[in-house]
Amino acid sequence: MGKIKMGMIGGGIGAFIGDAHRRASRICNEFELVGGVFDIDYERSKEFAAKEGISPDRCYESVDAMIKAELALPENERIRVVSIVTPNALHYPQAKKFLTNGFHLVCEKPMTMTVEEAEDLEKLVKETGLTFALTHTYTGYPMVRQMREMIAKGVLGTIQRIDAQYYQGWINAIIHGTGSRITGVWRLDPKHAGVSSCMGDIGVHAFNLIEYTTGLEIKEVLSDLNPVKEDIKLDLDGTVLLRFSDKLKGVIRASQVCGGLENDIVVSVYGSKASLRWEQENPNYLYMFSDTEPTKVFKPAHGYNEKMAEEGQTMPAGHPEGIYEALANIYKGVAKSMRGQAFTQGEFPTVHDGVRGMKFIHSVVNSNAKGNVWVKI
Amino acid sequence: MGKIKMGMIGGGIGAFIGDAHRRASRICNEFELVGGVFDIDYERSKEFAAKEGISPDRCYESVDAMIKAELALPENERIRVVSIVTPNALHYPQAKKFLTNGFHLVCEKPMTMTVEEAEDLEKLVKETGLTFALTHTYTGYPMVRQMREMIAKGVLGTIQRIDAQYYQGWINAIIHGTGSRITGVWRLDPKHAGVSSCMGDIGVHAFNLIEYTTGLEIKEVLSDLNPVKEDIKLDLDGTVLLRFSDKLKGVIRASQVCGGLENDIVVSVYGSKASLRWEQENPNYLYMFSDTEPTKVFKPAHGYNEKMAEEGQTMPAGHPEGIYEALANIYKGVAKSMRGQAFTQGEFPTVHDGVRGMKFIHSVVNSNAKGNVWVKI
Amino acid sequence: MGKIKMGMIGGGIGAFIGDAHRRASRICNEFELVGGVFDIDYERSKEFAAKEGISPDRCYESVDAMIKAELALPENERIRVVSIVTPNALHYPQAKKFLTNGFHLVCEKPMTMTVEEAEDLEKLVKETGLTFALTHTYTGYPMVRQMREMIAKGVLGTIQRIDAQYYQGWINAIIHGTGSRITGVWRLDPKHAGVSSCMGDIGVHAFNLIEYTTGLEIKEVLSDLNPVKEDIKLDLDGTVLLRFSDKLKGVIRASQVCGGLENDIVVSVYGSKASLRWEQENPNYLYMFSDTEPTKVFKPAHGYNEKMAEEGQTMPAGHPEGIYEALANIYKGVAKSMRGQAFTQGEFPTVHDGVRGMKFIHSVVNSNAKGNVWVKI
Amino acid sequence: MGKIKMGMIGGGIGAFIGDAHRRASRICNEFELVGGVFDIDYERSKEFAAKEGISPDRCYESVDAMIKAELALPENERIRVVSIVTPNALHYPQAKKFLTNGFHLVCEKPMTMTVEEAEDLEKLVKETGLTFALTHTYTGYPMVRQMREMIAKGVLGTIQRIDAQYYQGWINAIIHGTGSRITGVWRLDPKHAGVSSCMGDIGVHAFNLIEYTTGLEIKEVLSDLNPVKEDIKLDLDGTVLLRFSDKLKGVIRASQVCGGLENDIVVSVYGSKASLRWEQENPNYLYMFSDTEPTKVFKPAHGYNEKMAEEGQTMPAGHPEGIYEALANIYKGVAKSMRGQAFTQGEFPTVHDGVRGMKFIHSVVNSNAKGNVWVKI
Repeated sequence: MGKIKMGMIGGGIGAFIGDAHRRASRICNEFELVGGVFDIDYERSKEFAAKEGISPDRCYESVDAMIKAELALPENERIRVVSIVTPNALHYPQAKKFLTNGFHLVCEKPMTMTVEEAEDLEKLVKETGLTFALTHTYTGYPMVRQMREMIAKGVLGTIQRIDAQYYQGWINAIIHGTGSRITGVWRLDPKHAGVSSCMGDIGVHAFNLIEYTTGLEIKEVLSDLNPVKEDIKLDLDGTVLLRFSDKLKGVIRASQVCGGLENDIVVSVYGSKASLRWEQENPNYLYMFSDTEPTKVFKPAHGYNEKMAEEGQTMPAGHPEGIYEALANIYKGVAKSMRGQAFTQGEFPTVHDGVRGMKFIHSVVNSNAKGNVWVKI
Repeated sequence: MGKIKMGMIGGGIGAFIGDAHRRASRICNEFELVGGVFDIDYERSKEFAAKEGISPDRCYESVDAMIKAELALPENERIRVVSIVTPNALHYPQAKKFLTNGFHLVCEKPMTMTVEEAEDLEKLVKETGLTFALTHTYTGYPMVRQMREMIAKGVLGTIQRIDAQYYQGWINAIIHGTGSRITGVWRLDPKHAGVSSCMGDIGVHAFNLIEYTTGLEIKEVLSDLNPVKEDIKLDLDGTVLLRFSDKLKGVIRASQVCGGLENDIVVSVYGSKASLRWEQENPNYLYMFSDTEPTKVFKPAHGYNEKMAEEGQTMPAGHPEGIYEALANIYKGVAKSMRGQAFTQGEFPTVHDGVRGMKFIHSVVNSNAKGNVWVKI
Repeated sequence: MGKIKMGMIGGGIGAFIGDAHRRASRICNEFELVGGVFDIDYERSKEFAAKEGISPDRCYESVDAMIKAELALPENERIRVVSIVTPNALHYPQAKKFLTNGFHLVCEKPMTMTVEEAEDLEKLVKETGLTFALTHTYTGYPMVRQMREMIAKGVLGTIQRIDAQYYQGWINAIIHGTGSRITGVWRLDPKHAGVSSCMGDIGVHAFNLIEYTTGLEIKEVLSDLNPVKEDIKLDLDGTVLLRFSDKLKGVIRASQVCGGLENDIVVSVYGSKASLRWEQENPNYLYMFSDTEPTKVFKPAHGYNEKMAEEGQTMPAGHPEGIYEALANIYKGVAKSMRGQAFTQGEFPTVHDGVRGMKFIHSVVNSNAKGNVWVKI
Repeated sequence: MGKIKMGMIGGGIGAFIGDAHRRASRICNEFELVGGVFDIDYERSKEFAAKEGISPDRCYESVDAMIKAELALPENERIRVVSIVTPNALHYPQAKKFLTNGFHLVCEKPMTMTVEEAEDLEKLVKETGLTFALTHTYTGYPMVRQMREMIAKGVLGTIQRIDAQYYQGWINAIIHGTGSRITGVWRLDPKHAGVSSCMGDIGVHAFNLIEYTTGLEIKEVLSDLNPVKEDIKLDLDGTVLLRFSDKLKGVIRASQVCGGLENDIVVSVYGSKASLRWEQENPNYLYMFSDTEPTKVFKPAHGYNEKMAEEGQTMPAGHPEGIYEALANIYKGVAKSMRGQAFTQGEFPTVHDGVRGMKFIHSVVNSNAKGNVWVKI
């Protein structure tokens, strides 16, 4: 059972997220990067391939060229899965081409630019039966998985309130810097970022973590977004009221102007019997609160954890693993799925999670545009 | 300069909050409790007075009797300040009587049942020039005061986002218990609690902490409240969107159904230059985040603090003081004000804070009743 | 059941620790300070009495005068308990006089200057049957009491290792300041501090917390002390190896030169079944670790606590009480004892704890003087 | 600049530490594992090689065979660096063979069984000029490196006290289990573990972290070790008094019987100007305490860090990296050294650190054996 041959689109020299995907694929040790289209500039792409030790033959000039050449190879030499880490607007056309030609996919978020594109991809995945993973990386942390499994088992009783936060600070330094605000950060430019900055880039992670950990669907949203500065067109900050059902409400808070904060994601789920809280910056702690017992702190690599959490850490307890290992856990799930091995729902976020995310982003933007009214997701 | 003679209305046998006020007044050592109306049942009131070592002569049958008798005493023996710790609906008529008869007041929150009553008290306080303190106790913590002073000095730059939380759990056990939900907790009964449970009891603290620490006024609110259970009429849970100005938004989150949580208040203020966060359950830590420096943790009893914070702890650094000392700090401010000593704005919450609080509660309830629309405060 | 009449020796104007004792006695509401000898300078003593509203008749010129006058009063007017908060060298002679004349005592630590004096007091307390409390204040925290009760019930199994720390920083600023080191801090002067600075002042608290929480006696010590600076004669820093039995060892670490630290006391007890850790700067958290369960965090005011812990907090859960309330808990125990009410062993540290402390300090100093050898306590 | 060809000795099927080394080498992306002797059982070794995709030609039967075959290859195909992850007793003879044949080495700790062996390796490394890294993994954490660099720059002033702890719990469950204590854990068997369990396995990490972060050498030790159970021959627990100089003392505490703890390493260095504390279980936080400023928390990926710390995290701030990335940082240093690139002293622990560690272990065991007396390192 050799390594799975992997390709990559984007992620060349200087690309942060492509590097993260490669590291994760190496950590889980199930994949071998053998080719791809690493840069829109072919020369830079070849330079990158050389640096990575990738054969120049398989450093392709375009996605089309890559598909053609790979399909011409014997099946056991062919790239079977492709990681798409290109700018957002390219995800959809590239993903579509690969799916229709039989390649499994790992795709960066946001999955597409529109809901329609997202639904089209979902349809294609269903039809082809191919594996498609969306890298909502935080779902790869063992304690997020533990949270999901505990909730699924009913440990919390009836859920009564849900609150998720994603507060970030790095853009704050930029918007108060001396350079141009918009050219400084592509996320602030509608042409590249789409309809939303804050909700599209980070709010959607909070959304995903809620649906991932609780297994519930958010039905309606009412949002209040804030571009903060006059010359910025997209939201840098916002709050979203959530309705899951008549008696279950919640809130998502997200902001890119929390100066000095790093990557402060918190997901809290409050139930009739107990509550759980997880904080991304200390990802190996899961707090459980109950009316009758001392607060409990769950940590990875202990027999008391659920199976999916337990498998998420390879080191003994007390040896903190981090974000790369979380992403590696998602890649591990992809490998299991591709190999036809048993795996638990939740080992990687799916194309359906991508559809849900696009619907969330667009609903939130609509709610705000219409004057902070309820919009169905 | 002897102790200030103090009276109390309510707070007799078994009353938790009356005991807290007496402890606080003893801690700050400026007051001497000499009389009052401790219980609606006169026998129980006398029983309490005997236990406390209060002269039976000054254990009065009614507020009217008390006022009459005290005014008949020579000025230096007379009760000068009264602590009102009766059920909410009585605050207004009692406070009015005392103010019109020249007594200073310390009043429990919520100050009144309606905005009009609150404004009437504010008018009276202005006219009489008497000292009136509303016990938003959390404002007595040294690190809350430090937060206020740092923001006033401009340490945060332009404020960009404000987020306050008050999550509690004790009612959760009750609503899932075997007894009657409503009779079990008077806060759930509109007759006693007024128009709101969660926002009126705890949300208003979050509101007050925001206005106290930032010196800003919330202009508009949009709320989504949740009674959680079919047979409960008042909100047990809710989220309130906040508008301070066109470019400054925020959120208050409050819930009484966070099973297993204790008294989880968090106030975060994010500015262009730096951000501050304070958490009530570890009240002696104030966190400051900036884009360029390590996170800083301010603690009481250090020379780097502002004056009002520095005076808020009497023990050397590292000897944690708590909630009783916070309330004692408010009583200390009342004493300063009554004695005509110099004191800083903010040493105790005022009747104006009470007016603001009532407006907040009613605006939030209105917003929700009208279908989650913006309502001016 | 009126308040217990209390006297105080020392604690006049500017005295920090006397103020703490008075606050604590007021918080627990069982005592009324009616007289004493507040200052070696009689004029200042009277000035203080006036400020506190204490009758000038009972502001005495000397301990002898006080005893004589009080004994002449009818029993129900007489001071029954005296708090001794004078410099260390005076504790013994003053305590002896009061005990032999039938007064109950609350005494600051260190109880005496020598082991012999301590044993003499213990003998006197036994003979007279009077209540004698030594204010090892940290034992008044609810979670320290919870730790003691859990260990007594066997929750930890066989104890395997004990580690206590008391690290402080405030003297660091002084020894690196521009003034004289020794005149700046009386604790560094053998005439006032006795044989030890660090171990006598703070190490002994760590010692006491170990014996208090575990119920075990330390049998032998081997110490290595460090005066840190050439011109300082006493220890500012040290480590003490501990032997409880052949198979149970431990360590006490104490230092007054931990620049920037506040009052960093930690007591950890490791057992065959579970372990407990308590940290003074967050005194309302008690951590329990076990091989098979998530880490548990015990907090005050919960039904899962043992009785003595549960009674140690008067506010509902999540309203942090602090060091004054801890001292008030000790005063409450004294009142119970004096009133002949049922109380649990451990509600206040006893004269025997004082004897143990003096033996510890002298053994540690001897071990170091002899070249770091084992010395029996 | 292709990848460095790497070999491995040990680390076959089921070997935890070999897997960690391979992951780290893949994370840093500078190495390619091409051969080795993965198991003492050649069949299992080949099975492992097949699973890893390693050519059967380079799965060798013995170290001698490997050296011979590799040296016969052209230089650019040859294994240049070997990771030794065999049982402790084999490190020395294997390392010696590789060094004398010109191979660079990464070696697991403890480096050897005796001080003499360690010194022999140090001599060989000096003579050959080869790169030799000892994997004291914790030195690879960015915040440990930050601590080292800050101390080197004099941020702490004169160091006054040093305290390091390594408390672990996993062996506790075993010694209280139903199986044989000694056969259950090879670390408790002198034949495999050498002269010490607790100090040899974990105490030495605390020792290394002290010397690594401070740049100081420990001159003398006085230890008190505890086998805890009658039938165990080696130390499971102990305390070591440290002397750095006449006026600088410290302590190392280590235990394998702290039930319920995970991997609780803490290093604290107290200086005249400020103090630093680092805790392994939250490795991305470095606490700085000073007499005049708020406590500061340093975190990775910020411009305020020193260069070596800053390079230690590849993700943006707030994306926690962990223990694998720490080990990868050490591997990255090895690559720099082998490639002749500029690198900072401290990017990997050296053979000299290994010599120091062996001297520490043997001195500690001697001190205890002689009755807890001072022994020079």
